[in-house]
Amino acid sequence: MLSKNKVKVIRLLALKKHRTEQGLFVAEGPKVVGDLLEMGPAETLIATDAWLQRHAQILREHPETVSQEVIAVNEVELQRVSFLQHPQEVMAVFKIPKVEDGSQTLSPNVLSIALDGIQDPGNLGTIIRIADWFGIRNIYCSPETADAYNPKVVQATMGSIARVRVVYTDLPALIKRLPKDYPIYGTLLDGENLYQQELTPYGLIIMGNEGNGLSPAIRKLVNKKLFIPSYALNSAHAESLNVAIATAVTCAEFRRRQVE
Amino acid sequence: MLSKNKVKVIRLLALKKHRTEQGLFVAEGPKVVGDLLEMGPAETLIATDAWLQRHAQILREHPETVSQEVIAVNEVELQRVSFLQHPQEVMAVFKIPKVEDGSQTLSPNVLSIALDGIQDPGNLGTIIRIADWFGIRNIYCSPETADAYNPKVVQATMGSIARVRVVYTDLPALIKRLPKDYPIYGTLLDGENLYQQELTPYGLIIMGNEGNGLSPAIRKLVNKKLFIPSYALNSAHAESLNVAIATAVTCAEFRRRQVE
Repeated sequence: MLSKNKVKVIRLLALKKHRTEQGLFVAEGPKVVGDLLEMGPAETLIATDAWLQRHAQILREHPETVSQEVIAVNEVELQRVSFLQHPQEVMAVFKIPKVEDGSQTLSPNVLSIALDGIQDPGNLGTIIRIADWFGIRNIYCSPETADAYNPKVVQATMGSIARVRVVYTDLPALIKRLPKDYPIYGTLLDGENLYQQELTPYGLIIMGNEGNGLSPAIRKLVNKKLFIPSYALNSAHAESLNVAIATAVTCAEFRRRQVE
Repeated sequence: MLSKNKVKVIRLLALKKHRTEQGLFVAEGPKVVGDLLEMGPAETLIATDAWLQRHAQILREHPETVSQEVIAVNEVELQRVSFLQHPQEVMAVFKIPKVEDGSQTLSPNVLSIALDGIQDPGNLGTIIRIADWFGIRNIYCSPETADAYNPKVVQATMGSIARVRVVYTDLPALIKRLPKDYPIYGTLLDGENLYQQELTPYGLIIMGNEGNGLSPAIRKLVNKKLFIPSYALNSAHAESLNVAIATAVTCAEFRRRQVE
């Protein structure tokens, strides 16, 4: 039985203010919820009988690995609490993982991504999914970047949010704590062709805001400027790549070189 | 002055039935409308004073290159006719370009994309934008693929719809008209690593449906199976790439080889 109050409490988690206050976020659908449950139990799990039946054994034998609170609902109730146009069997509330305070440092021997003001939740979610695919464990976000625990972002990650650590931090301060010659990659119009530039198997790849690209403060800190070449037939046009697409093309090339 | 009837006629173009009947589609925003105007005049153009002032000279000297009908509106009127949550100064109705009937053949010496049942308008729009970036002029779509002239697709192309030709056709029939050894690329789980497979500078790259991948009929016609390698840290997970991201990574590698 889904109480009115529970619906209200969950729906408030659409707002960042409430997510931050409660330290909680919402995930929906068997894939995303399933991936998150592998990392730890949900605070609240709301599911249809179909989903509950598929998970009957684990709910009976190890309920503590699933959720502190399990609420069975029908489709109509799920529709009432869901953030999706087409709710998908299950939704759950999870704790936002605690990350260290602003003084975190970047592991220097791995490849990481930094996001300097990505605004669109779909882009952020897609970039988290790309990071997962390319084995990138950490994404460092400027405070202006969209919130990774926004329900739209969580959905767009397709479950990758369970495996990628997203840290909000002061990017220039983070970079300044790195060794002086640490490779800081950024895509810039005056960069070198991605396919001709030397790429290290570790480093920080910074992607900028959808409209404005990298902020001036970050631009100054990039020491390996990259440029993704266009093969457009009519180069008079200012064709552009979406930032998530540019992230994928860049990460693919880093990983291809590493394997070669 | 924007009449009620005009609002109604334009808003009906959200539906494929009406777009097909009228042979018309809607585009919005200075970038998308601007790119389309370079290819030919609009049937109807609805714009705020700000946009009209910026284009005053061309509207005075060569009105025939802009639109048969120009309607000045204020923000409130634009909001009423727009499909966007945040309308952007201008919207226009264009003729859907005529493409040859079902008997069209594929230019054999170029690289082309085929889409086998892409459902999401955002994915389709992004793929059209990717094609533009990578100099791919033609996209062949199965009849089940989303409609390229859906307003959401048109927006997601960011203007690339003006430069990429989208043809709806029977894909198996199209492929069967090609020379027998013509390279038909498809991404499949049992494919060869994209980075190890020989890639020709021409051919047809087929991308499948978001949930089901390539249809069985198409799978049989693929003669160069590709597989995009994952570098995920925990390969037990069924991480996946969004189809637009997979298209970009694939096209990037084709073009990189071609230049090398």
